[in-house]
Formats: sequence, structure tokens, C-alpha cells
Amino acid sequence: MDGREAVPPTVQADVAVVGGGVVGLGIAWEAARSGRSVVVVDPAPGTGASFAAAGMLAAVSEYHYQEEDLLGLTLESARLWPGFAGSLGAETGYQSTPTLCVAGDAADRQALADLRAVQEAHGLGVRALTVREARSLEPMLAPAIAGAFEISADHQVDPRRLVAAILGRLGEDRIVRRRAQALVWAGGAGDARVVGVLLDDGREVRAGETIVANAIGARDLAGLPVPLPLRPVYGDILRLRVPESLRPLVTATVRGLVRGKPVYLVPREDGTLVIGATQREDGSDAVSAGGVYELLRDAQALVPAVAELELYETTARARPGTPDNAPLLGRVAAGFGPAGAADDGGHVPGLIVATGFFRHGVLLTPAAARICVELLDGRTEERWDAFRPDRFARIPHETHASYGRTA
Amino acid sequence: MDGREAVPPTVQADVAVVGGGVVGLGIAWEAARSGRSVVVVDPAPGTGASFAAAGMLAAVSEYHYQEEDLLGLTLESARLWPGFAGSLGAETGYQSTPTLCVAGDAADRQALADLRAVQEAHGLGVRALTVREARSLEPMLAPAIAGAFEISADHQVDPRRLVAAILGRLGEDRIVRRRAQALVWAGGAGDARVVGVLLDDGREVRAGETIVANAIGARDLAGLPVPLPLRPVYGDILRLRVPESLRPLVTATVRGLVRGKPVYLVPREDGTLVIGATQREDGSDAVSAGGVYELLRDAQALVPAVAELELYETTARARPGTPDNAPLLGRVAAGFGPAGAADDGGHVPGLIVATGFFRHGVLLTPAAARICVELLDGRTEERWDAFRPDRFARIPHETHASYGRTA
Repeated sequence: MDGREAVPPTVQADVAVVGGGVVGLGIAWEAARSGRSVVVVDPAPGTGASFAAAGMLAAVSEYHYQEEDLLGLTLESARLWPGFAGSLGAETGYQSTPTLCVAGDAADRQALADLRAVQEAHGLGVRALTVREARSLEPMLAPAIAGAFEISADHQVDPRRLVAAILGRLGEDRIVRRRAQALVWAGGAGDARVVGVLLDDGREVRAGETIVANAIGARDLAGLPVPLPLRPVYGDILRLRVPESLRPLVTATVRGLVRGKPVYLVPREDGTLVIGATQREDGSDAVSAGGVYELLRDAQALVPAVAELELYETTARARPGTPDNAPLLGRVAAGFGPAGAADDGGHVPGLIVATGFFRHGVLLTPAAARICVELLDGRTEERWDAFRPDRFARIPHETHASYGRTA
Repeated sequence: MDGREAVPPTVQADVAVVGGGVVGLGIAWEAARSGRSVVVVDPAPGTGASFAAAGMLAAVSEYHYQEEDLLGLTLESARLWPGFAGSLGAETGYQSTPTLCVAGDAADRQALADLRAVQEAHGLGVRALTVREARSLEPMLAPAIAGAFEISADHQVDPRRLVAAILGRLGEDRIVRRRAQALVWAGGAGDARVVGVLLDDGREVRAGETIVANAIGARDLAGLPVPLPLRPVYGDILRLRVPESLRPLVTATVRGLVRGKPVYLVPREDGTLVIGATQREDGSDAVSAGGVYELLRDAQALVPAVAELELYETTARARPGTPDNAPLLGRVAAGFGPAGAADDGGHVPGLIVATGFFRHGVLLTPAAARICVELLDGRTEERWDAFRPDRFARIPHETHASYGRTA
């Protein structure tokens, strides 16, 4: 609006969300629905891990031993998904089709059976199928599979459509297509608080609350009161087209274990298929030839007709891993911030962290959004304490010398 | 130049080449160098099989049993390659690096050894290497390979750079970016001849000689005096990037036989690698998931570090196959044309066919160009008679009723 050479104007909002992937957009959507003005800061919304993600909503089949805290969160989010999807109309590709967990060989079957015992101990519904039963449900499964388990509670959404749906609902004027460089702090001793973010074009977004939800990118945001122990876990994802003569290839999401390695096949309504499951920590965001090979090999072991499909896209992206594979979600204890700066709950004022969702970003989006809005409302639930973003840090003896940019 | 609604002008040239792949462009380049004005007709030059091709110049290692006629042509073209590449400067990526033929197992080694006996009987230089010798030349070869043969006469070029080099030399005003619909015939009984092509925008290209060099697309060109028995043989081609830490992955072109299946790995100067060799006649120009899988599997069997590369492009294209796998190259006997229409050599006047090059399009480009220019000069060589484009047709008892569009 101003002249080109003038200092650019500050953007104002009740809530600034840093990060326009599914998590950031989900939070922004719920915050907007709560009546707040919201701005999302992202140079290219929806092009990170959300662009690659298959969109499985797999609280049950993604359960891993010893991850009970996480299970509470994933089940809560799975419960929220239908309502969350419903708030966005039919545009998200949300489908309540079931999930089949398929074993490549006898050892894989034993591993899935052992896991099922733990899943059932947690009250999760897992139905054992014979090979015959599994193949009557999904005739394209290989005759040589060793067994299968049906999980009717695990569903799917299309993350690309979800991103587009939320972006469309928020409106382009709510999206600031710049990179956030640093948190902006204001106030002095006793009343310091986060008041927004500095953009890479020199502008600021000023907001009552700033939510850091930019996945692995949070590592590069200056001015955080605690370091966020995030590491990139790369995955290769294939997108294939099923020729008319082979449709439907499968109707359920097929999650396999093949010689101990996971692979999943997620069928979309439009006749395409998403195949994934590689996890690499090799620092490369390029598609791995070895990863593509293993995905195609293991997918064919479960569904041989995969060889007949068109491979039309290969993608690799980094997901934000944490030391305990659980998210960094909540406010930061005041002790990590400037001396004396604390809100009523004893936290750094103006700041919420929501990252580190690892393999569960899409599944956990409604729960992350719900929890963030509760925090905006001044409410906290003790059961989510396990995810506080400062749990890996120690409160320093002395106050930090500086917090990025101070207004 | 004219008003938008006016009838578009006719394009004039000494020679019209239908098809802007490597073969068509190579012919156009040699025709232009012979002093003729040339026009190339192609809606999207260089985007067909030339876009996918690895660019192996493999007269020796591509030799197949019983294809002696073809061998004469491929050897002639290999002989012409250095001069042809030299006429275009250093821009074509032409490299005289050798080729290693590598056997995956003992049966593959026997097959390569049997072929070598025939190759040597034809005077072709093939050197048997022990596994130790092969791995000292190319340390990234798998220890488990069964043997190798070195063919120093088989080289490579980069077809995409070749296309760009010729397009640049010809100049954009020599390229008509339209589809050729039909041959245009002129004259009546006794002096009928091909005088150019009709474009899909209604314009005509008028030329003293028309050369049909649009690969599989020649099937759709109306007005040909003989049917051209072309079939599409699809191939999947992968392009990968070698990380700095693994360069050079290989220095020679590696052609493998793995459990009886061919695979090749062609290293480029820029640190990329082209992998190919699938042949599909399934009618699909989409990349085959099964094809990609087999290429990666067999390439890793020869060079395990292929798993560490970045897969950045997958392409599928159709090559024009013929019943005897040899090209359709030359003039058409006058008996197939309108009654009485014949040039001094007894052929349909104004028309040359140059298609059906199958797997050998890049290799055969200089020979095709040389032979076409000789035909333009009114010269013919008996040794190329085996490739006459009407060899699968019978001269009809009655004259054809119509030849596409008659001027």
C-alpha cells in the first residue's frame, strides 16, 4: 500500500501462526473459528512434509510399544477428526475406509500378532483375518501373504486437499508468504513477552500470541527461549495411477510389514495410490533411489499388480523428529524466559510451541489445534503435560542474554 | 506477418523434414550443411524418444544375432559420429569413453561370451576381463558380478544437448512448431510428386523434397504411398544424481545382463547417471512402476551404490519398432505411387522416409543424415537397399485412389 521504498507496514493479528503445513493451518483454522484474527506466516504453505504425506489417520496401527502418552493424544485426535473434517466440508478427502495390516511372512505375522496383543490390552480394536478372509476383502493381495489384521478405526485424509481447503477458507489476506526469521520480544524485566515475529523482508507480524508450528523449520527461528531438539527424518513417497482395468486396486489402506520393514499403500478416491514408509536420517531431502526400490519391492510383495501401475510422482520430505518421538506442544515454563516474565500459569507470555509431530502430523492436527485454542483461552489440561516443549531442557541459572529481536 | 484472420502463408524450403527428434534434426542439419534451405516441422522438437534416450553409441554391444544388415549401418554410423559431433562443436556431450558389458551371474556371462564369439567373427573388438580387472577399472562394480567385457569402440552422446545444439544452429525461423497432418501431392497422371506437407493450422510447407522422419508419428501422417509398419516399443528411463562423495560412480558406460535381462548405466560428465533398458509393448506411455523397480533392482545388482543416488527424473517414451528391427530408410518405389509418377531412379518423386530406428535412433543419426543427403543429391548406395521403406509392402495392382491432400 505504501511506496515501494518506505518501511513496510506491520501486520497485526490476535494470533500469528508460524508455519503453513497441515499442523499450522489446522491451528490457524481452529483459532479463526474461535473468533480470533489469525495470520499464517509461511513462504510456501503446504509444500513441506504436508506435500508428501499420505494422510493416514492411524492411531491404532501406528501405535508403538512404550508410547502410551502419545497413544492418548493420537486417540484423542482420531476422535476429533470427523468433526474437524466436517468443519471444512467435503473438500479434505477424509474417508473412513478401514486399514488392513498385512504380514509378508510368518515372522512379520508374529510381529503384528504380538503388537495386536498390546493394542487390545489398550482397548484398541484389531481383528485377525485369515489369508482367505483378507483376500476376499482385497482380492489383489498376494496369495503368499502370511496373514492380516483389520483395524476399522484407522482412516485417511488427503493432505494436499486439506491444505487447499484451509487456505481457501482462511483467505489469501490471512497468509503472509514470507519466512519468519525471529521471535519479537517486548517489555523489560518483569513484563517481557513475545509479541510477534520478524519477517525476512524486514516487516513484523505483531500478535497477542505467537504459535511456532513450522515443523523442522523451527530450528532456524531465532529468539526461542528453549532449544527445540528437532531432527529431520526423511521419507520417500510414491504416487501412482491405477489403470482403469485394475480399479479398485485396493479399497482399504494396506499397511504391510515385509521382512520386518513397514510399507503402506493408501488408495485415493480418484484412482491414485500413495506408497510410502521409508525413514532416512541421511540428511538428504532428495528422493533416494534405494528408498524407491524398497518401496516398490515391498509393495509388490503385498499387491503384485503394483508393477502394472503408472509411477507419476516421487517426493521426499523431512518430518520433524524429537528424542522421544512425541511432539513439542504447549507453552514454555517461565523459568526459561527473561527473569520475571510469566503469565498466570507460570509460562513465557505470548508464545505457544506446536512442532515435532514426526510421523503423526496429519493425524494430530485436530488435537494440536484444539489444545492450542485451549491454551489461547487460558486453559490447560494436565494430561498433555508430557508434551511440554521444554521437557528436554534445564532451566538455566542465569537469564538468557538476548532473545532475538526486542521491540 | 499477415493479418490474423487472413489465410496463413505457405512456408517454402528446399527440404521439409517432418519430425524434430534427433534423427529429423540430424538430417536437417546435414541438409542445411549441404547448402539447402531446410524447414523442420514438429509441434515440440526433442520431446519424444530423444528426450528419454540415454544416447549410447553402441554399434558393437547392441549387435544382435542375425542382424548383419543392421550391423553394417550401425558401424557406418559409429564411424561418422566423431565428425558429425565435431560439426556441432563441443555442445553435444559426445564422449569416447568405453563400454563395459557386465554379467550378473554365470549364465549371463555365458550369454555375453557366446555373443562375443559372434562379435569377434565380425571383426568387432571385445576384450574379456576378469572380475578383478573389471573392478580395478570400475571399483564400484559389485564383487558378485560374474565377469565383464570391454568394448572400447562404443561411446555416448547426450541426446538433449544434441537436440539443443542442432536447434540452436538451425535457428528458430527454420522450425515450424506445428503438427504435419498430410503429405501434399501435386501434378497429375505421369508427373505426380510430393510437394510438401499440410500443417494442423491449415498452412502448408512447400518443399522440393519432403523427408518423413517423425518416428512413431509417421503412422498418423496421411497421404503416404505405402503403409509404414511401425509399432511403439516403450521404455522407462531413470535419471539419477551421484552425490559428490560417490563421484565418479562409474567412468565407463556399464551395460549389464542380470538374470538374462539387459540394463545400462550411462554416466554423464555433470555427475548424473542415466539408467534404462526396459522394453514394453503394453501401449502405455506412462512410467511403469514395475519397470522402475526392475531397473533399480538390476542396476543395484551391478553397482550396489546406485541405492545411494538421488532419483530425480523418470521418463517413458515410445521408440518406433519395425517387423525386422531395422529402419525404414530411403525412397519408395514408384509402383506404390500414382501411375507413372517416377523420378530417374524409379521412385516416388519428392519423398524420402527415415523412421523405424527403434533402439538405434541416436546411434544411426549421422548415417541417416548422410544417406538422406546422398538421396537428395540423386545418389543411392546399393548396400542400403535392405532398409527401403516399402520392403514390407506389395505393389498394388491398381493405383491408389487418393493421396491425402492434392495441391
